[in-house]
Amino acid sequence: MTSLRFYFDFISPYAYIAWHKLRAEDRSVEAVPILFAALLDANGQLGPAEIPAKRNYVMKDVLRLGRQHNVEVRCPAAHPFNPLLPLRLVTAADDAEQRAVMIDAFYRAVWVERRRIDTPEGITPVLSELGLDPTEWLTRASDKTTKARLRAATEEALTQGVFGVPTVVVEDTLFWGVDSLAHLEHYLEHGESLDAEELSRWLALEAAAQRPGSKR
Amino acid sequence: MTSLRFYFDFISPYAYIAWHKLRAEDRSVEAVPILFAALLDANGQLGPAEIPAKRNYVMKDVLRLGRQHNVEVRCPAAHPFNPLLPLRLVTAADDAEQRAVMIDAFYRAVWVERRRIDTPEGITPVLSELGLDPTEWLTRASDKTTKARLRAATEEALTQGVFGVPTVVVEDTLFWGVDSLAHLEHYLEHGESLDAEELSRWLALEAAAQRPGSKR
Repeated sequence: MTSLRFYFDFISPYAYIAWHKLRAEDRSVEAVPILFAALLDANGQLGPAEIPAKRNYVMKDVLRLGRQHNVEVRCPAAHPFNPLLPLRLVTAADDAEQRAVMIDAFYRAVWVERRRIDTPEGITPVLSELGLDPTEWLTRASDKTTKARLRAATEEALTQGVFGVPTVVVEDTLFWGVDSLAHLEHYLEHGESLDAEELSRWLALEAAAQRPGSKR
Repeated sequence: MTSLRFYFDFISPYAYIAWHKLRAEDRSVEAVPILFAALLDANGQLGPAEIPAKRNYVMKDVLRLGRQHNVEVRCPAAHPFNPLLPLRLVTAADDAEQRAVMIDAFYRAVWVERRRIDTPEGITPVLSELGLDPTEWLTRASDKTTKARLRAATEEALTQGVFGVPTVVVEDTLFWGVDSLAHLEHYLEHGESLDAEELSRWLALEAAAQRPGSKR
């Protein structure tokens, strides 16, 4: 079976909606937590929450997407927040099904239940509700190996050309964002069948202009 | 009838696809040329073409969108390019229908026919094909008033919270990107009907974290 890697961060409501859709379609994916902020850092890019006009737009867009795709979504308790703790907890889970159950619960806690999962105090009851021992899991999350694994996953994503979340990678082919899930379906059913000549032209294209203020 | 303002720049293949869709649906819009680079400057933001990983992804995404929405699209002759000349030409057209015909032709020249429209030499034959006198129109394009009108339109877009192209604005409500056209249809048919409490919560939300490297 074709393997799908789903790169995500809890900070992103778009990744939440994409995750919900993939789960609803019973699509088998390997969920890979990564730190979105590290992608932004690597690309010298601002996140949607860091551009005031875009930030204002995001929640409206997310509510519209929730309606369109029938996914429950609410304004969280705080945003942006530091997602390292829940990302590390998921990283520490080796079993795919356990990982999926944790992702479900953490996403629901942030984007439906308005709970804080960025602190040990906030996430402890969420872990307990899952039948997981909070002390044991918080210890695992702060383990050096876990931290290194999360960093390695983020590096791996960057190496594959991932620049945002959610991104699904299938056989080195990227699908970024909620709307690309329709393209992913097409790819899985019919293959990519895009014009290879157009793509290679684009990669070889010369720029005819650059913004004076551009950092490149 | 509800008035729709369509903010666009020729640099953006997404704006091209959105324009094509709006025309195909016979949707009456007021097309407003703006300089996308000025939006990026105002927000201290990088454009998709300025982030290498994202740039690589764009053409693939655009070909997929073209297939999905049945819009012919090809890799252009050069990209990014300086779009000021075609933007000013459209700005100089007062008649809405003439404006639409010019936009059709310029978009087709760049995104289907691989022609350069960023120079007087490149755009002259395109104008001639439209039955427009190139000398007269190039003079109009370089008029101080035209330049000022383009700048004013860009400023107006920024004031309305526009941060990217394409953006459709209806009664102060923004729809950004090709995929938001589905949300625009919903809005025009059923109204917005989003949860106002969630939206106002979001606008009032405190950040619980900031990236160390963040420019905010």
